[in-house]
Amino acid sequence: MKLYDCAAASSPRRVRIFAAEKNIALEKIAVDLASGEQLGADFREINPDCVVPVLELDDGTRICEVFAICQYLEEFKPQPVLMGRTPVERATISMWNAKIDQQGFFATADAYRNSVKWLKNHALPGPHEFDQIPELAERGRKRVGLFHEMLNRRLEGREFVAANVYSIADISAMVVIDFAATIKIGLPDDAVDLGRWYEQVSSRSSSGA
Amino acid sequence: MKLYDCAAASSPRRVRIFAAEKNIALEKIAVDLASGEQLGADFREINPDCVVPVLELDDGTRICEVFAICQYLEEFKPQPVLMGRTPVERATISMWNAKIDQQGFFATADAYRNSVKWLKNHALPGPHEFDQIPELAERGRKRVGLFHEMLNRRLEGREFVAANVYSIADISAMVVIDFAATIKIGLPDDAVDLGRWYEQVSSRSSSGA
Repeated sequence: MKLYDCAAASSPRRVRIFAAEKNIALEKIAVDLASGEQLGADFREINPDCVVPVLELDDGTRICEVFAICQYLEEFKPQPVLMGRTPVERATISMWNAKIDQQGFFATADAYRNSVKWLKNHALPGPHEFDQIPELAERGRKRVGLFHEMLNRRLEGREFVAANVYSIADISAMVVIDFAATIKIGLPDDAVDLGRWYEQVSSRSSSGA
Repeated sequence: MKLYDCAAASSPRRVRIFAAEKNIALEKIAVDLASGEQLGADFREINPDCVVPVLELDDGTRICEVFAICQYLEEFKPQPVLMGRTPVERATISMWNAKIDQQGFFATADAYRNSVKWLKNHALPGPHEFDQIPELAERGRKRVGLFHEMLNRRLEGREFVAANVYSIADISAMVVIDFAATIKIGLPDDAVDLGRWYEQVSSRSSSGA
């Protein structure tokens, strides 16, 4: 299997960590987002949405979107289980992953994409041009702060975000926190439980994938 | 099982249709979003994110987020299959559902929530107040148009959005189209394939759920 990837980008990093936890080897094909390779004709053939990651199976089938790719990898190699062992656990992990996407990832992406100079006309990923909206960057930063507070409350007395085992929700939350750090939004000093959890999940060898 | 619901809202409608297709009976508990019931202390105990739908199992476990709820219902009653019959089909349906959320649902929600008068200080769902951003409403409307064009291209020569059977992706896309119609964004006249598909999925009895 091949993974269309970009070492610096958060979304493919989620897949890389997920695969590393399962010890699944993926052939990585680097897409140079900084130079706009994802907008060129060749990559549009791979993914008309012009984003990574894309998982390409040996028969040529392509799967986009982080959660969908991880679902496939979970079925391809079930152990260690990262998306739940029972129906309730699977739904709970999926729920937390969705909360992290909406309250964390999209908020961070709003803050990032509407403020950095190199995305001036590309405030949204994809083939269409959209101007940056400064108020949206500001709103995003505020929301990231609320996201950190919410996660800190959730982690009080808990080892992991969604279940009593490490899961995709821990991967997603860790990657979002690192994404926010690139625009200088760090964890609040008083978020003790979040800080403890972050240290623990970041120390796993997969986090460097 | 109970469903915390709101008849007028798009997200719980997705769950209602999904359950109707599977003939799963859910006890519905109406939450009056228009009067702000979701922001009150009682509902915050149910879901601190102050949104519906919430599925409550007989043992009291609560599951939020549309996709997570549907995952649970799919395992609770597998037939008819709405989330895929094979690993590749499951991943493909999940991918399309995510695309529909991002390119359709969130775009429509941006257009809606940043323009209607009754959400003046609640441009985002949830307990926190956020001012409306008019540019975001405008961007949302533009994106909904692009979403319709994208779906029309996808449906050329296809009966259903994601697989060769009806799936959760068809439910999501139909509900998003109806949501956009509430702010007077209709389907383009020349979107023939989208129009044909829309007529077909809307004629299913579940669409009235």
